[in-house]
Amino acid sequence: MTDSLIQPRTLKGFRDYLPATMVRREWMMQTARQVYRRFGFVPIDTPALEYFEILTGKGSEETDKQMYHFEHGRHHVGMRFDLTIPLARFVAQHHVTVGLPFKRYQIAPVWRGENTQAGRYREFSQCDFDTIGTESVLADIETICVAHDLLAALKLPAFEICINSRKVLKGLLQSIDAGDRATVVLRALDKFDKLGEDVVAKELEEVAQLVPPQIDAVLAMARITGSNTEIIDQLQKLLGSQADAAEGIDRLKLICDALSDMNVAPERVQINLRIARGLDYYTGIVFETILSDLPEIGSVCSGGRYDNLAGKYTKQYLPGIGGSLGLDRLLAALEQLGSGDETAASRTIFIPYFDADRLKDYLQIATAVRQAGFDVELYPEPKKLGQQLKYADFRGFPIALIAGSQELDAGKCQIKDLRNKTTMDASWRPSVKPLTEAIATTLKPVAIDL
Amino acid sequence: MTDSLIQPRTLKGFRDYLPATMVRREWMMQTARQVYRRFGFVPIDTPALEYFEILTGKGSEETDKQMYHFEHGRHHVGMRFDLTIPLARFVAQHHVTVGLPFKRYQIAPVWRGENTQAGRYREFSQCDFDTIGTESVLADIETICVAHDLLAALKLPAFEICINSRKVLKGLLQSIDAGDRATVVLRALDKFDKLGEDVVAKELEEVAQLVPPQIDAVLAMARITGSNTEIIDQLQKLLGSQADAAEGIDRLKLICDALSDMNVAPERVQINLRIARGLDYYTGIVFETILSDLPEIGSVCSGGRYDNLAGKYTKQYLPGIGGSLGLDRLLAALEQLGSGDETAASRTIFIPYFDADRLKDYLQIATAVRQAGFDVELYPEPKKLGQQLKYADFRGFPIALIAGSQELDAGKCQIKDLRNKTTMDASWRPSVKPLTEAIATTLKPVAIDL
Repeated sequence: MTDSLIQPRTLKGFRDYLPATMVRREWMMQTARQVYRRFGFVPIDTPALEYFEILTGKGSEETDKQMYHFEHGRHHVGMRFDLTIPLARFVAQHHVTVGLPFKRYQIAPVWRGENTQAGRYREFSQCDFDTIGTESVLADIETICVAHDLLAALKLPAFEICINSRKVLKGLLQSIDAGDRATVVLRALDKFDKLGEDVVAKELEEVAQLVPPQIDAVLAMARITGSNTEIIDQLQKLLGSQADAAEGIDRLKLICDALSDMNVAPERVQINLRIARGLDYYTGIVFETILSDLPEIGSVCSGGRYDNLAGKYTKQYLPGIGGSLGLDRLLAALEQLGSGDETAASRTIFIPYFDADRLKDYLQIATAVRQAGFDVELYPEPKKLGQQLKYADFRGFPIALIAGSQELDAGKCQIKDLRNKTTMDASWRPSVKPLTEAIATTLKPVAIDL
Repeated sequence: MTDSLIQPRTLKGFRDYLPATMVRREWMMQTARQVYRRFGFVPIDTPALEYFEILTGKGSEETDKQMYHFEHGRHHVGMRFDLTIPLARFVAQHHVTVGLPFKRYQIAPVWRGENTQAGRYREFSQCDFDTIGTESVLADIETICVAHDLLAALKLPAFEICINSRKVLKGLLQSIDAGDRATVVLRALDKFDKLGEDVVAKELEEVAQLVPPQIDAVLAMARITGSNTEIIDQLQKLLGSQADAAEGIDRLKLICDALSDMNVAPERVQINLRIARGLDYYTGIVFETILSDLPEIGSVCSGGRYDNLAGKYTKQYLPGIGGSLGLDRLLAALEQLGSGDETAASRTIFIPYFDADRLKDYLQIATAVRQAGFDVELYPEPKKLGQQLKYADFRGFPIALIAGSQELDAGKCQIKDLRNKTTMDASWRPSVKPLTEAIATTLKPVAIDL
């Protein structure tokens, strides 16, 4: 009597990560942790579930609508849809304990029940870093540096961090008496690089309801390009007399100057006056990061400065600046570009379990090679060698260590390079050193980082 | 006009991880990843949400009752309450793609709406490793080795892995004609070490409804202690003629023999015939790991062999063996024992931003020290030095690099050891090497692993 089988499947919009993808993902997350810590950020974690009232109202209506939420016991609970609201709640709750300024990172999944037709997933991971409790330009500079070092550490060949200032945009809007239409104007401006000037002009007229001189002023600013120095010069002429804009221009200049003195190549950071970042809580610097070889996938690392993170939960004024690495978008990009391939490829040494009577010898050789710092998979059953090598090919192991009873008796084994089918002999008893040195030579020049 | 504030708080049974705890947790998870990979395990990840029908019925009634589940769109969905059912679903779905044998690990949160009065959390992380698709004793041996190497890598001073065989227990039950009462007998047996023989005897009589000769036989087996060799000898006399038991005894012997030849000290692995592991899906080896200095917290790494992982989802026969590191329980233990303290302590170098006009110099020194491989936090605002050093003490930074304009002009700075208040000078320009070498000396002998 057997029950009928249940079809094994995942929910629509959800996915499994198979090993090859997951190895790359772990490498990305570990790289992010290392870069964040390099700049003094510390990790926190928060629950997947929060009180519904904590999660609502701070994001947009859209995220409220997309939230997974339900009744549990006497409470209405929701699954977090970003890491910013949990951070705001966390800092409101713990700022005395953790102290200010507070630099934290958090890498964790979030859930949004969005329309999956756009190829979006309903579960994805965010990888955020924020500096809370300071308005200093130093935090702005280091935020851009973190974005830079992060992308560099992920071995992306070419990327550009585009920065802009909401203060400049605010100044522009005030100068044309359109401060009350910030959100719609910024949303239109964000489309400039992708859809072109005409689309923006039309949207400024029809949606933002600006008149021609206002539209001209917005477009005049958006058209400014050149080196960062040139852009700042032109901005100063155009908007330097407006107080907010002047403040924004000064800060852009400070940032660009400082970065050129640090570990950041000048071509990596570009002022782009058309970057607005749709969400309306930013108040200072905003930034996006475009992969030069894959601009169509959009920004892979974005963020900006905000005035008051947690006003919904505390009277404590908490300005800050933060950024977010788009883990899943970047994962797709890395796979397309082949970056991190050497990390994703198996570096595990394969040992066929060849002679059934010599279990202990196989365990000993595996243990010795592991203790020398290599990952080793020992085949669990004494099947035919050919079958085991087929499995090794399927798995993509670079090297197999083959030993029958004669080799085992002599304390030797054969190192078979499964990629180019060459072989060499090495002894592993009484010392494993000749063997592990030969393995290290064979595996070079592959990186050893996890 | 301000809205009334929403109280920042977490749901009952849920918690935030603050940085000091989270640093230790990240270290544990990264250590687990490294050990798992050392043995050829590869990572996967699965969704937090699954179809309700996938999650139900395979666990116990208790877990079904504790599951967070709700309607979403047209579907009934649940949050996973362990990583075993998602693994079963995953392997049923992907075994052709990933190939067999399949050795995977997964580190991820799970949710159980249990009674929180017992001090349990409703969200906790599991850290599982399993070898699917083989019945080989080699997989049993390596599973015990992984548990051993994991606990050793976490620098636990003393632990004991207790192993037993469900085959032996099954043989015992058959020999006394009580095969139909396995679950209740095993549940009673599990209480032997904690509550004593009398409690077990009473439960065997009243709950399992065994008669005195049956109870005597169970207790006779449970009383067997001694070295592994002695236990195996006595078991062979007691149950060697029963087929299932004989098979179990042979395997226990093979495992103990092999481990003594590997990197495992004999006192680390102990046959314990009273370990049964309540859940009824185990069919072969079972194990638990007790911290000798904290036995009361219970097992920190447990697991066992099962016959058929995914029978609910596929006709493919999938035997396997797995284990699970009790991350949160172990985190509490590590904090009590002080293990990993050097990892949890901040290794970040603190640089006060001292002279307001020298922003660029501070950024340069921070960048140089970072590039040499150290984590650096630069204070974001040019406040008074005393105030900044107070902050540094609060944060627990080991070292501050202090430089005013005179030191900066001279390319020097003061290395202040904040733990013992000693100071020394070092130059960082034109080369940062004298400085970073002095920092490295000051930080020794603290480990550098993330």
